[in-house]
Amino acid sequence: MKLEKEYTCQGGMLGYYVHESDATQTEMRFTVFTPPEMTKKGAYVVFLSGLTCTAENFTTKAHAYQKAAELGLTIIAPDTSPRGDDVPDDEAYDLGQGAGFYLNATQAPWNTNFQMESYIIDELLPLVEVEFSLQGAVKSIMGHSMGGHGALTLYFRHKDVFASCSAFSPIVAPSKVPWGQKAFTAYLGEDQESWLQYDACELVKNDSKAGDNAEILVDQGVGDTFLEEQLKPELFEAACKEAGQALTLRLHEGYDHSYFFIQSFMADHLEWHARYLTA
Amino acid sequence: MKLEKEYTCQGGMLGYYVHESDATQTEMRFTVFTPPEMTKKGAYVVFLSGLTCTAENFTTKAHAYQKAAELGLTIIAPDTSPRGDDVPDDEAYDLGQGAGFYLNATQAPWNTNFQMESYIIDELLPLVEVEFSLQGAVKSIMGHSMGGHGALTLYFRHKDVFASCSAFSPIVAPSKVPWGQKAFTAYLGEDQESWLQYDACELVKNDSKAGDNAEILVDQGVGDTFLEEQLKPELFEAACKEAGQALTLRLHEGYDHSYFFIQSFMADHLEWHARYLTA
Repeated sequence: MKLEKEYTCQGGMLGYYVHESDATQTEMRFTVFTPPEMTKKGAYVVFLSGLTCTAENFTTKAHAYQKAAELGLTIIAPDTSPRGDDVPDDEAYDLGQGAGFYLNATQAPWNTNFQMESYIIDELLPLVEVEFSLQGAVKSIMGHSMGGHGALTLYFRHKDVFASCSAFSPIVAPSKVPWGQKAFTAYLGEDQESWLQYDACELVKNDSKAGDNAEILVDQGVGDTFLEEQLKPELFEAACKEAGQALTLRLHEGYDHSYFFIQSFMADHLEWHARYLTA
Repeated sequence: MKLEKEYTCQGGMLGYYVHESDATQTEMRFTVFTPPEMTKKGAYVVFLSGLTCTAENFTTKAHAYQKAAELGLTIIAPDTSPRGDDVPDDEAYDLGQGAGFYLNATQAPWNTNFQMESYIIDELLPLVEVEFSLQGAVKSIMGHSMGGHGALTLYFRHKDVFASCSAFSPIVAPSKVPWGQKAFTAYLGEDQESWLQYDACELVKNDSKAGDNAEILVDQGVGDTFLEEQLKPELFEAACKEAGQALTLRLHEGYDHSYFFIQSFMADHLEWHARYLTA
């Protein structure tokens, strides 16, 4: 793990790191914000970014570090996919590099490198926990758009890992919307049954203990141009209701899909997670 | 004046505008953040950015809008120079487009377009005041690096215009440092006497009523790689002392010249100005 850049910020430290990943067989970049004073349990939050993002968008645009410093939360932001000249890609913004969808691809040519679920859960978090003295730390997960899909699916697929989960403008039903259908066909193949394991609406319905989970917070801008075709939060609301999963879904008039929306409610999300992380 | 982009942010509105400027004889871009509820006097703050910046860096990286929304402050952020294929430029980052130094150039080829002082004071602010119903509003000025130089010099050169002034990592003595000497030689010519009218240290010393001015806030990172060669805040501190100008100069261990420094103390600056703007 190599430190590429480092900044003092909000009384804490923001580091940009690169390391060789076994899971993706590429270099992977991520950032870690360390607050001036950690909570007793060393609590941290993972933020997963959306399509086209790198590990940098969050650091400059999400305005998370003031509140994280106040709450004593470490924040880890991974990249959205493996990258490199030898890594498969697609000309479109919503497939390939920058569009990993936080899953383990099973189909060639993607399956060699696009193992983002294993990368985050089995490789990055254990690495960060060792390097930043966070072993045994409680942790939560959040994300935006494709990263909201990532946060929700990783939360339900790894029930013992995260204390809580939240999302901005998440893709909640990838099996039913163009972004997800395109990516899942490429990464997981034509068999739509295999898609359901990475579909948040299906996962919550299949969680027999959904009633015991932490309440999930979802914020969505009503002025988001992707709302009707790609996001469909009403499907997740119905699935949570069916499963007994506690959910706060907030619809915000005027807000769009951008980081100006994210920054406006970031403090709420960090405070939401802190309730579970410092309980 | 044409609206190019608009975002709901922190309960207010952020607009990106373009207009034809008489002062620079070019299109000029700027941004305006309007808080959800203005102060009674419609108070606003002008933020001037540093070398290489456009009107966009501030909007995404400075994290000003949460506090501005809370305080009811409008924020105007102009571009750092005229731009365009027909506008003179230099290969270096510190001269020409992106490096206007907020002055009126007297030397060819710069003097046709590089009239940033007239542009801001005589054209942009009156335009914005009409378009956003801010006529007669009280206002303050702040900036970063070259924009800190701009804020300080425009404050002292237009004593009746701004209620208060603050700066992050400002160039306070351009006549004595490489950035300023290079730019002033190009824009103002070889006669160094002409430089002093745009040198904050000289301006404060020549302000016979400096003791009546609002206190100035300057924040500077001690880890700033430009500190010793280009910034020299101690020269401004000495000049203020000599002139009787009240100054709070804060030196922050570890912080550098980046927007991660700016975001860490932006709320302090807005609260500082609000004391004068809402008094």
